[in-house]
Amino acid sequence: MQKQDRRTFITTAVVLGTAAAASAMTTMEPKNKKQLTHHVFFWLKNPDSKEDLNKLIEGLKTLEKIPSVKKLHIGVPASTEKRDVVDNSYSASELMFFDDVAGQDVYQAHPIHKKFVENCSHLWEKVIVYDTMEV
Amino acid sequence: MQKQDRRTFITTAVVLGTAAAASAMTTMEPKNKKQLTHHVFFWLKNPDSKEDLNKLIEGLKTLEKIPSVKKLHIGVPASTEKRDVVDNSYSASELMFFDDVAGQDVYQAHPIHKKFVENCSHLWEKVIVYDTMEV
Repeated sequence: MQKQDRRTFITTAVVLGTAAAASAMTTMEPKNKKQLTHHVFFWLKNPDSKEDLNKLIEGLKTLEKIPSVKKLHIGVPASTEKRDVVDNSYSASELMFFDDVAGQDVYQAHPIHKKFVENCSHLWEKVIVYDTMEV
Repeated sequence: MQKQDRRTFITTAVVLGTAAAASAMTTMEPKNKKQLTHHVFFWLKNPDSKEDLNKLIEGLKTLEKIPSVKKLHIGVPASTEKRDVVDNSYSASELMFFDDVAGQDVYQAHPIHKKFVENCSHLWEKVIVYDTMEV
């Protein structure tokens, strides 16, 4: 092996080793890292319109393609007991997990998210967002 | 093998086979089954009291022991961008996953949950609950 070749080989091996270590860390992350949750509740302008609800849900499904979105749950009010503290007046909800605040920033600015707002924001009259960081 | 022995062997094999299949289904469930999320936001009476916040968080941690609680995320407001739609006025939040409405009913009636309410409800002045069923 020429001196130059050997240096290239060592550099490549170090780079590959680092990449493998980084990959292992990424795989382990979801279990150990504290996550940010982004929970959005939507109140439709026409809450009785099944068509508008379906349009909103279809729009929400597109958000899963944004790489920093680690998990997406799209929901509607559950049929749990009606209690004073339970708010079941919303039409649909979107719950996402991010690795950190930066991931949520990337999501907000992402073209898929902007397209969703452009296509669907005429459907809702109110939105409430809760961003929580795991303790 | 005697006729009786053979029958016992076949029955046992069928039972074991069914048990294995049931076990495989249980293992697969979390990925395929639509889940119920139970997200509770707490506003403390003394929002500036670090001590009260810690008492509430310690209380919330006990809820993880309730068998029907599939996952528990305890959070505080994340440092995401302040926007009109973002409500970051709460003190702490509890996000849980259940397999179904029945699992949430079991949780509500469970002694650990009742003990938590008994020990911690004097700390908060407001609670909002959102129960969502995955679509």
